[in-house]
Amino acid sequence: MASEIVNPRNELADAGLDPAFALHRGGKMAVAATVPVRNADDLSLAYTPGVARVCGAIAQQPELVHEYTWKSQVVAVVTDGSAVLGLGDIGPEASLPVMEGKAILFKQFGGVDAVPVALDCRDPDEIVETVARLAPSFGGVNLEDISAPRCFEIERKLQERVNIPVFHDDQHGTAVVTLAALRNAARLTGRDLADLRVVISGAGAAGVAIAKILLGAGVGDVVVCDRKGIVAADRTDLTDVKRELAALTNRTGLTGSLAAALDGADVFVGVSGGTVPEPAVAKMAPGAFIFAMANPDPEIHPEVAARYAAVVATGRSDYPNQINNVLAFPGIFSGALSVRATRITEGMKLAAAEALAAVVADDLSPSRVIPSPFDERVAPAVAAAVAAAARAEGVARA
Amino acid sequence: MASEIVNPRNELADAGLDPAFALHRGGKMAVAATVPVRNADDLSLAYTPGVARVCGAIAQQPELVHEYTWKSQVVAVVTDGSAVLGLGDIGPEASLPVMEGKAILFKQFGGVDAVPVALDCRDPDEIVETVARLAPSFGGVNLEDISAPRCFEIERKLQERVNIPVFHDDQHGTAVVTLAALRNAARLTGRDLADLRVVISGAGAAGVAIAKILLGAGVGDVVVCDRKGIVAADRTDLTDVKRELAALTNRTGLTGSLAAALDGADVFVGVSGGTVPEPAVAKMAPGAFIFAMANPDPEIHPEVAARYAAVVATGRSDYPNQINNVLAFPGIFSGALSVRATRITEGMKLAAAEALAAVVADDLSPSRVIPSPFDERVAPAVAAAVAAAARAEGVARA
Repeated sequence: MASEIVNPRNELADAGLDPAFALHRGGKMAVAATVPVRNADDLSLAYTPGVARVCGAIAQQPELVHEYTWKSQVVAVVTDGSAVLGLGDIGPEASLPVMEGKAILFKQFGGVDAVPVALDCRDPDEIVETVARLAPSFGGVNLEDISAPRCFEIERKLQERVNIPVFHDDQHGTAVVTLAALRNAARLTGRDLADLRVVISGAGAAGVAIAKILLGAGVGDVVVCDRKGIVAADRTDLTDVKRELAALTNRTGLTGSLAAALDGADVFVGVSGGTVPEPAVAKMAPGAFIFAMANPDPEIHPEVAARYAAVVATGRSDYPNQINNVLAFPGIFSGALSVRATRITEGMKLAAAEALAAVVADDLSPSRVIPSPFDERVAPAVAAAVAAAARAEGVARA
Repeated sequence: MASEIVNPRNELADAGLDPAFALHRGGKMAVAATVPVRNADDLSLAYTPGVARVCGAIAQQPELVHEYTWKSQVVAVVTDGSAVLGLGDIGPEASLPVMEGKAILFKQFGGVDAVPVALDCRDPDEIVETVARLAPSFGGVNLEDISAPRCFEIERKLQERVNIPVFHDDQHGTAVVTLAALRNAARLTGRDLADLRVVISGAGAAGVAIAKILLGAGVGDVVVCDRKGIVAADRTDLTDVKRELAALTNRTGLTGSLAAALDGADVFVGVSGGTVPEPAVAKMAPGAFIFAMANPDPEIHPEVAARYAAVVATGRSDYPNQINNVLAFPGIFSGALSVRATRITEGMKLAAAEALAAVVADDLSPSRVIPSPFDERVAPAVAAAVAAAARAEGVARA
């Protein structure tokens, strides 16, 4: 689900035959009342005059908003439409089908209500200000499909402004699931995270977040490559975010191409699109792990990867070990909302990855280092771990 | 439902015993998927990769957003919490129970999805800017419980910015239902609207809108009173909105108190709270209509009103002829959304009032000049009339 690449084509020509269009007609979601409104008695409780007593109580004791409204169970799925799947900058309205899709995944997998909020503005400070003004209505904010490096600034500044969790799923959802898969691959093959050197192809939202969570989890070294090669401190063309990345990663000071980075590497993580030539793959260390997550075309085809790697994962549902964000975000928000967390800390993300990995830890195989998206144990396990971590880290309000 | 007055009291002390609190626990609404997400095939249509084809099509042909997303069936219920029922300025979070209530009424009565958006900002231009940025996600905006005179400026400026309908229900919903009741009261008693002089007590959101719609419908004269008495051109303390009102209304140049205005008046419309002394009521013209809509305490008690009036209406559900906005807003938005209207014109509001009145026009009595909120004919009739008017006025896109 990370870093989707979609071939440019004329979608309209196919719309009549494509079942995706039939399914999308009229949208994919609706609002429902959870209380009866059948008669005047019902109205007098759910609306006036009864509702005024509840409003008055919240005005007197603000934390009651969590008990007597849907605030603490609803997440805003916020985008500006600037980096939608592999389609790029298609604007807010064209992004709505993805936001609706995300919203129904929140509901289906995490029992979390979610509302698409596609914004007609682009300046990071304007986006921050807009979402901060919306914050009273929501228990959390899932940022989605916002282009890098703007996404980093927006997430940071917004979290400073509001006291509800802000979570850019393209970054952290992908990072959590990647770490879970890596933990289980290491467990399966008797490796220690501290002994692994990981090469990440892609220094966008997902690549940056994966690098940080892997280092936070104790991975030995991480080397990140962008289109120009290894992100290294001596490069003069780095953005602020990549300069920070260069300082945190690449402990041995590698320079050069992705192929140079892969020479002897233990793990490949692809969140870039593009293709890695087979000779570069062949130079990885024995027993490597290859997580080639671009969609629909993995950076290394799974059959090629299998020739060199002990564990292969992709972003696709038709190969084993799908790195799918839906394994993370529903449970993460479900857990965070359940304790009215004010933010989602690094510790909560690490706890989510451990819990996700643990779901299949007793039943590992090379084709099973991560659960299926439809494994019903996942979201409750992630939610419980995230809630416990939120309490432990002092960001829970309930 | 218009102009609710709630006694200040300690709501918290009663929360344990009050069924309104039990009903509100966990909120009153939820989001639901309307398409299946049971397996990988479902996911591949509702989410990636299928969703990307739909996004691509909308990017190529923007009007497809109305067909393939929920945009054209979802309304943002927007407030800043500045004038919530009779509670006044309780802020965005404490207003959420009302916004949720409104949202479920939209669904129950009009089949319209609606989402509470309680904003943490107060400056009218900031509210306009914020909602304009949200507009790509919604098919319409229902402004709610925003204090006058800010509400007038916000509605006007916002409608200039966006190409979806903006409708301040406290103004226009109340005005439409009031006009419908007045039409039927006139029909029942063989009067002509042009022969009526209407006195409106209250020059806030509802009072201003009622004055305008009545004049638009051909009512002979309207006199508006605020706390200081008749809104007349010679007053030096008028806001811009009231100065405009003074120019439109009060054709005979009355001055003085509400009692002076009522002397010989044909209709009283109360949207103010407060109490009208019985001697002032007694001076109205024979066969008067008294619509005393303050909640829970009508400006003129219905039993007092009945001594002097041919038709009595209130805002309460426990007396005949309840002037309840729920008779208007669900059908108005349902109709406007069904034709993808870009705005809600005066003609659409007049058409809504006529259709609402027509529902009971064959079955009128003094205790039945307006349908019950639970009359299932109402919303479809209003929606059809509004859609037809939108087409006739050239603001429909479908």
